[in-house]
Amino acid sequence: MTTFLSPIAAPDAASAALARARQDTLTKPAGSLGQLEALACRFAGWQGKVQPAPLRPAITLFAADHGVTDEGVSAFPQAVTAEMVKNFAAGGAAICVLARQHGARLEVVDAGVAGDLSGLPIVHAKVRRASANLRREAALSLAEAEAALAVGRDAARRAVEAGANLLVAGDMGIGNTTPSAALICRLSGAAPEIVVGRGTGVDDAGLALKRQVVEDALARLAGRELAALEVLAELGGLEIAAIAGFYLEGAALGVPSLVDGFITSAAALVAKALQPAVADWLIASHRSQETGHGIALETLGLTPLVELGLRLGEGSGAALCLPLLQSAILLHNEMATFAEAGVSEKAE
Amino acid sequence: MTTFLSPIAAPDAASAALARARQDTLTKPAGSLGQLEALACRFAGWQGKVQPAPLRPAITLFAADHGVTDEGVSAFPQAVTAEMVKNFAAGGAAICVLARQHGARLEVVDAGVAGDLSGLPIVHAKVRRASANLRREAALSLAEAEAALAVGRDAARRAVEAGANLLVAGDMGIGNTTPSAALICRLSGAAPEIVVGRGTGVDDAGLALKRQVVEDALARLAGRELAALEVLAELGGLEIAAIAGFYLEGAALGVPSLVDGFITSAAALVAKALQPAVADWLIASHRSQETGHGIALETLGLTPLVELGLRLGEGSGAALCLPLLQSAILLHNEMATFAEAGVSEKAE
Repeated sequence: MTTFLSPIAAPDAASAALARARQDTLTKPAGSLGQLEALACRFAGWQGKVQPAPLRPAITLFAADHGVTDEGVSAFPQAVTAEMVKNFAAGGAAICVLARQHGARLEVVDAGVAGDLSGLPIVHAKVRRASANLRREAALSLAEAEAALAVGRDAARRAVEAGANLLVAGDMGIGNTTPSAALICRLSGAAPEIVVGRGTGVDDAGLALKRQVVEDALARLAGRELAALEVLAELGGLEIAAIAGFYLEGAALGVPSLVDGFITSAAALVAKALQPAVADWLIASHRSQETGHGIALETLGLTPLVELGLRLGEGSGAALCLPLLQSAILLHNEMATFAEAGVSEKAE
Repeated sequence: MTTFLSPIAAPDAASAALARARQDTLTKPAGSLGQLEALACRFAGWQGKVQPAPLRPAITLFAADHGVTDEGVSAFPQAVTAEMVKNFAAGGAAICVLARQHGARLEVVDAGVAGDLSGLPIVHAKVRRASANLRREAALSLAEAEAALAVGRDAARRAVEAGANLLVAGDMGIGNTTPSAALICRLSGAAPEIVVGRGTGVDDAGLALKRQVVEDALARLAGRELAALEVLAELGGLEIAAIAGFYLEGAALGVPSLVDGFITSAAALVAKALQPAVADWLIASHRSQETGHGIALETLGLTPLVELGLRLGEGSGAALCLPLLQSAILLHNEMATFAEAGVSEKAE
């Protein structure tokens, strides 16, 4: 573990085991709630309670820009990052709608947007204005990578202090599927041709260019033994680093995170490279349309709950899954047992 | 169409098309909300409104017993049906927890439970006490099948009169995966060896017996041209017939239904055999663990939203998916457009 990170404990195995035993007393055929049963037991382990408290989720949306957009890797202009942050502040984006629907705290953090957002009611934590172009040079210095991790760690602490017992990170950053793909390639060993996808919607020529950009970035590092923080600095973006820090500090505080899509999975891989114990505090929400998301999830050892063809980011796929997690906990806590309800058990 | 059923109109294609156009103006990459975009447009067609009203779901749980349990096809004794209805009335079953979580109306209907439930605060509509043993004889007379369809149709009308704009049917009936499998085989043409599964959890010997029971039931009808109502009477159960009637009357009233698992999919196949137009008013929720559920969904032309390894019934899988449908509608209605938010569109 790098010294600037907090230690991460293991979930409470005893509570999880007692929760497993409780599941088998509830008025349903054993195993008939499928993945929801295992989820409830994981929350028991995370909270250290056989009957875990209902979820109070917090969503933190990290925004930043990427120098690599100079290469033409996105279907949208860089200005859209700042425009979308204004949309977040005004409540008009997808993640705002979902946060309202689910009663989740929503905080927006500027970790490095190129444009000036100083008038907006968001958290201002610009580490720098956009990362450098990772095709040509390190995207961030080591100090900048560490500062961006700290932006996310601070955000996790604020969310937990506000009462959250489940964290969701979202991303906004035009061009950010390119650094995410580069990180996933470097950290999983998978090839750019299967990891690099169309992001917000580049055409065939754009896709070929994007693959080349990722190959060039990886070639800069070929044969070099790098620490996790160095990989992050070379290939990462500011919001990706912040999200990695968010997951790490959440786990250190004993609070699990629900991972969203392609970008947040890249951040989770970075977090795992920095502190492997974080993986025990992560849940996958969905498998996105973006090529390579499945590879990232497999490398993390995570199984997605749903597959709805999403590719929006912002934390939207994770937010969509929040009620499924809440159901897992409420069913676990509120269903009657066979004994309580006077229902006959299965004949053995 | 049989004369005792109400006519079903087509969804409003014009509203659905306008909703599709609206989707492409919202502040997200086109198509990035995946299946949720198509869902929102389907609700526009069902409600005849470009911006459909948020969902007010109603869940109706139909319970009945099955003479075929005499053959030993279930892991649980028949008495559990009545015991679970008491559990529903007391609020301790999975579907009760989910209905509370989602603020859904929940009604329990006795369509033919063997035991006496007269003291319970449920809808008493016993057509008979359990169906006959479909391995040996017709499960129901034609008049009983029609009466059970009417039980479901009445329930759909009550739910819609109470304000529901989305219907969910649930099932409870020890032994009901056997008639469901028989119906799916007869109506899809698939073989018992791939359609018959373990239900609530029979062992290998139980599974072999269950397959033989379904084969024997199908053999009784081999080579006979039967009307849909006759198939239902020969192989169906009372709660399955009621659920088919529920879907049909919902569609006739212009209200879609979210189909749950294996039993309700068998009922949906019966409904479609009676009135093919009903298929345009159905949504699949999940693909269950039960072998053959996927075949039923394919025959219905439905794609499940999630696959969580569920096999509980009661409408629980459909209820779990309600927030996803609500999200589809809220995102469609509440997200800002590119013009409203001043966000740049994709460069073409």
